[in-house]
This record gives sequence, structure tokens and C-alpha cells, in this order.
Amino acid sequence: MIVALLTDFGTKDYFVSAMKGTILSINEQAKITDITHEIEPQDIKSASFILASVYQNFPSKTIFVAVVDPGVGSTRRAILVETDKYFFVAPDNGLLSFIFQQEQNFRVFELTNPQFFLPNVSQTFHGRDVFAPVAAWLSKGIEPKEFGSKINDFIKFKNIRPKYISVNLLESEILHIDRFGNLITNLKREDVENDFTIEINGKIIEKYCDYYAEAETDEIFTIFGSAGYLEIVSYQNSAQDLLKVKTGEKIKVKFT
Amino acid sequence: MIVALLTDFGTKDYFVSAMKGTILSINEQAKITDITHEIEPQDIKSASFILASVYQNFPSKTIFVAVVDPGVGSTRRAILVETDKYFFVAPDNGLLSFIFQQEQNFRVFELTNPQFFLPNVSQTFHGRDVFAPVAAWLSKGIEPKEFGSKINDFIKFKNIRPKYISVNLLESEILHIDRFGNLITNLKREDVENDFTIEINGKIIEKYCDYYAEAETDEIFTIFGSAGYLEIVSYQNSAQDLLKVKTGEKIKVKFT
Amino acid sequence: MIVALLTDFGTKDYFVSAMKGTILSINEQAKITDITHEIEPQDIKSASFILASVYQNFPSKTIFVAVVDPGVGSTRRAILVETDKYFFVAPDNGLLSFIFQQEQNFRVFELTNPQFFLPNVSQTFHGRDVFAPVAAWLSKGIEPKEFGSKINDFIKFKNIRPKYISVNLLESEILHIDRFGNLITNLKREDVENDFTIEINGKIIEKYCDYYAEAETDEIFTIFGSAGYLEIVSYQNSAQDLLKVKTGEKIKVKFT
Repeated sequence: MIVALLTDFGTKDYFVSAMKGTILSINEQAKITDITHEIEPQDIKSASFILASVYQNFPSKTIFVAVVDPGVGSTRRAILVETDKYFFVAPDNGLLSFIFQQEQNFRVFELTNPQFFLPNVSQTFHGRDVFAPVAAWLSKGIEPKEFGSKINDFIKFKNIRPKYISVNLLESEILHIDRFGNLITNLKREDVENDFTIEINGKIIEKYCDYYAEAETDEIFTIFGSAGYLEIVSYQNSAQDLLKVKTGEKIKVKFT
Repeated sequence: MIVALLTDFGTKDYFVSAMKGTILSINEQAKITDITHEIEPQDIKSASFILASVYQNFPSKTIFVAVVDPGVGSTRRAILVETDKYFFVAPDNGLLSFIFQQEQNFRVFELTNPQFFLPNVSQTFHGRDVFAPVAAWLSKGIEPKEFGSKINDFIKFKNIRPKYISVNLLESEILHIDRFGNLITNLKREDVENDFTIEINGKIIEKYCDYYAEAETDEIFTIFGSAGYLEIVSYQNSAQDLLKVKTGEKIKVKFT
Repeated sequence: MIVALLTDFGTKDYFVSAMKGTILSINEQAKITDITHEIEPQDIKSASFILASVYQNFPSKTIFVAVVDPGVGSTRRAILVETDKYFFVAPDNGLLSFIFQQEQNFRVFELTNPQFFLPNVSQTFHGRDVFAPVAAWLSKGIEPKEFGSKINDFIKFKNIRPKYISVNLLESEILHIDRFGNLITNLKREDVENDFTIEINGKIIEKYCDYYAEAETDEIFTIFGSAGYLEIVSYQNSAQDLLKVKTGEKIKVKFT
């Protein structure tokens, strides 16, 4: 059984390996793999985007453990989500919003049964003490309902889709900035079926390409990326550096 | 059999994968996992702290390979440590000091039998040529005593516990700085059972919290972290940036 | 079957895990390991060097997937290389040049059979859509010739060996800069059998050491590294910072 981890813990500390050791101590047969641990600290929305961009590449029955958890130790709940094909274990803070948007059928359980936690749950590290052991027990075949009761009032971000400001003007935002400085927006193909220009941080972007090598060096253009969203990019350069923007930056899409 | 790796090799070169390939060439069934490879180059004490913070999360019989090795190619010895539950393979340079402190019963063997090394041991990369193959052979069931003789004069840092300067004044130090800029001290719960204030780099820290969300943004406070040590932290900010300190920085604990 | 990945994708995005998920969806038994994903974006030569430095440490039948692919979506070809012991899957852009140099017998196949690709191949992410599934099918025992026809006009860099400028003067270059700031040249032992000095970025380096601890702190010297190439290094310091050079920098070797 595959357990795939996504956190904002970085890789320089013992945090991620404490989770892995905990999982392996419960189920030494678990096959652990990393999505990423380099989410910007506490950037829940970017984490949600990354998870949603990749989960469908994994085999059926994969257990995803996603921990970006600024509210650890407070009263935020912990949840387990079961879809027809996958399991997700995460804090109930909006991190699974894109999953809830993409999936039709799913059940959400609150993690309350301490039988499946480590014996002493710390105030600061539920990744190791709650989420990892729950994932490990799940990988051993424990039924979702054993971990706690079904809930319906889980948290889902409301503003993850672009919205119309006027008939020809759509407001979108930057969900994630990748390693190459490409800016991933929340615009899908169906959002921009007509000709459009983009305004971002005072700059206008008119060029749209089908593949990278179509553009000239340093030129800024838009392209549909491999996650299915429109990206603002610059061939062999960083659009982030050129445009000086951050995750969450609002952009305007004008149809012409 | 699980083999867990900790080094200061980083992840941009071939170093770590050379170790993994070497292990897999000897025992293709080995289950290799990473603790971290982002130890600050040659920071043996931080590596020792990280290893000690995580090893007990792993299953029985796990083999830990820890390589932070500024003396590679010189006369420093290589060792294998067997505790009742685990194995550790490392240079004999103090890297296992926290393990020696936490464990009651252990045996230390010097690695001298070239039969378990790669055929041509380089002067610069014992991670690949000595430590990785020894771990792999160990994972195949070779007995510790086959690798070399038992020794008692292995190296153990003397200054890893805080020490009293006067009756109400304890000197502690920063063992490690984590990804979030939290400063991990060598103070355990039993060291600070009475009310205390901390002096670090000229600043006084009085506030102690039980969990992160208790504090206000940017406020600096102390909290017991998930490794069981007192940490100097700032909620949603980096205490390292605010206090401008490094690993090894001395701090004063005043009891009131 | 081991599948070893090398890319310039970094580890903060979903790219690498999309490849891993794709491989596991086709062959859940595949044993995936990372070489590195921190190749400088689009530095094909450095990637080629890293791969060549490590592949022989891996067991027979390992499948290496190397993706540094500035030409993705254009007309560059994708290839599978079979040596007597290993498989390599990569874009046909010179990335396997050092492999072609080190291996005597190998066969190169162009990847053209869409049966072994994902159903919808994107313009931007052949790592996930082409290279990962091909590696996964290969790990399930599909014969190389099933993926496409044999070709002989694959791309191989011409300038990867040092060349004589005059009888006592050899021009070499920096292939790779490692985590510690060590500069790895393309000089092998047989290239510098006589006494030599190095000129790099206006500085002369005369000292040669057999191991690191021979030198004094901050002193710049040369040493043969664990990959078998001459390296320009500084003990407990970064030669890159001291010399201010980049990958690709030319250096002069003067025999005395």
C-alpha cells in the first residue's frame, strides 16, 4: 500500500523522517513516497493545488497524507477523506479544497479515536503523532469509520475559482509558483475559450503559446501547463523574477 | 530491513544516490529511507541532535547510517554501534554522542574488515566506499563482530548538556535551527522545572507557551518542541532572523 | 526492478511525484529511487556528468530516467539506451553523452510507440507523459525494440574531454559544482600524469593534495574526487565563492 506525503516541513529537520519512521513502525510493508515537503510554510492553498495536480497519477488505494498545519495544537479538527479510489489524511483547514472540488463522491471522517494515534500526542507535531499513525493503520486495512464519525461541515475554501467582475473581465489569482518561476493561475481551458489578455502587477501579457520553444528568450507569455491550468511563464527565465509577484497575487483576464 | 540515511551531502550531487546504489547492489531488498541530507556542512552536533530526535520512531532492527565526516581520509576511525534495538554506522567523531547519552546498553565496534568495504576505498568518500557497504552487509545479517573489534575509547562530546554557572544560572546552547527558524536548545523539561527567563544575544525572553497559537504574531517565546527540548520560537516568523543567532550560540537561563 | 530518477525539476512542485505516481500506477512493484532533482535548470552537461558518476554503483538491470529537457514539445526525439547492464531513458539532447563515452556496447532506440505513453501526451511534461511510463513498462519486462526503432544518429556532445591548445597547455572546463562549492573538472588521472598548475578566472592554483585534511583552511588546491575527476576545492570553504566561477567555465592546465 502506497503512502504519499505532502508537507511544509522542509527536508533539513527530523520532521518528515519522524513521520516515515512512525508509519514503518506500524506497517513495515508500507511503501512511502514523497510528493513534496517544500510547500511555503503555512501556504495551505498552494499545498491544496499541488496535491490536486498529482493525486490522479497514483494507483488506486493510495493514501495521501497532507500536513500544512498552522493551527496545530489549537481546536482545528483532523480528518480522513475517502473517495472511490483514494484516501486523504489532513488537518481540516481547507487543504483538501481542490480535492473536494474535483471529486464527486467522498466521505469525510473526523479523526477522534486515540487508539490510532501515538500514545502521547504532542501539541506541536500532529504529523508524527496523529496523521502518520492514522495513515499507517489505514494502510493495514482499518476501516475509515473506525477512526471517528462522519462529518459534513468540513472546511472548503470558497474562492478557489476565478470570478467575473464584469461581462468581459474575470478575476483570477496565482495559486502556485513553481521551481522555474512559472506562475500557475486558477484558470482552466473552459475559462478562457475566447481571445484574452492578462493584466498582472501593472503589466499586460498578450502572447499565448502552445509550447515553450515557440517564444523568445525572456519574453513573457501564457501557456497551458501540465496540471491543466493557465501559466504565466518566460522561456528560459523566471516570470516570478520578471513580474515580481507572490502566490495569492490577483490577476485580471480581459476578453477581447 | 530498513536503512535510514543522514548526511551533510545535500541532494544536488551524486553523493547520496551513490550510497543508495551501493547498498542496493549488495542487498536489493534493503528498504532505504532518508532522515535528512541537509545538515549544515560539517555540523556534527546538529547531526547528532537530529538523529537522536528521530531514531526511536523507527522499527526495531533499523540500520542508521550517519555521515558528517570532516576528517574523511585522515586517521579518524569508522564505527558500528549496536543497541538492544538498533544499529548505527558512522565516523568516530562524536556524531553518535546523543545516542550514547540516551542509550543504556550498547556495543561499539571499529570498522576494520575491508571485506565489507568497496574494493577501492577512496580518500574522500567513505559514505559510498565504507559506510554504505557495511550497512548493506549488516542488513543481510552479518554479525557486528565480523566488521572489526569492540572498542571502548570511542569519541563522545562532553558538552552536550547545559551546565550551572551559579546556583540560579544555567548555561545552555542552540543545538539546531529548524526550517522555520525555531532555535532548539539542549534544555529538557527536568532542566527548567522552575520559572525562568532566557538571555540570548543580548535579548531577554520571558514568555513561555504550551502551544504556538497562544502567542501573537512576531512575539518571541519558548515552548517545548516535539523532540522534547525547549525551543525559542516566534509564531509565523523566524526566531533565527529576529535574534540573529547560529547553531552553537550560548544562552543563559535565569531562575527567578 | 529499480527505477532511478534524475531531473532538473526541483522538489517543491508536483513534477517528480507525478512521474513516481505514473510509474507506480503501471508497476506498483517498481522500486523508485532518486539520483537528484536539483540539476541547475536546463544544464544538460552537468546532468550528464552526475548520471555518469553514479550509475555503476547501481545493481544490474537498473532503469535510469534522466529528464533535463529544454526542448520538450519541439521536435527533439526521446530515446531508450540499452547497455549490457543497464537501461537509460532520456531526451535525445546530449544528456547521455558521458554514458556513450564510458560504455562500449549499447543500442539506442527512438521512443515512438504511443502504446507505452500516457493517453494524452502534454506539450510541456514528457517526464510524466512519456519517460515515466516507458520506464515503468520496461520494468515490467517489455523488450526495448517494442518502444521504437534502433537509431544511430543520436546526439552526443563533442566537447566533453579536455583538449590540447599547445604541447604543454590543456584546456579543460568545469563540469559541475557540488554542494560544498567544489569545482569538478573534466580532467582524469591520465590527463595530468605530470606536474601541473591550473589557471582559472585569472588565479593560479599550484597545490595538489591527496586528501582534504592535508590543506589549510581557505587554501585552494586540487584533489582527485570520488567521481575520478580532478576537483578544485578549498578545505572547509567554497572554492566557487572564492573563485567566483560557474559551470562551463574554461580552465587552463599548464605542465611544468
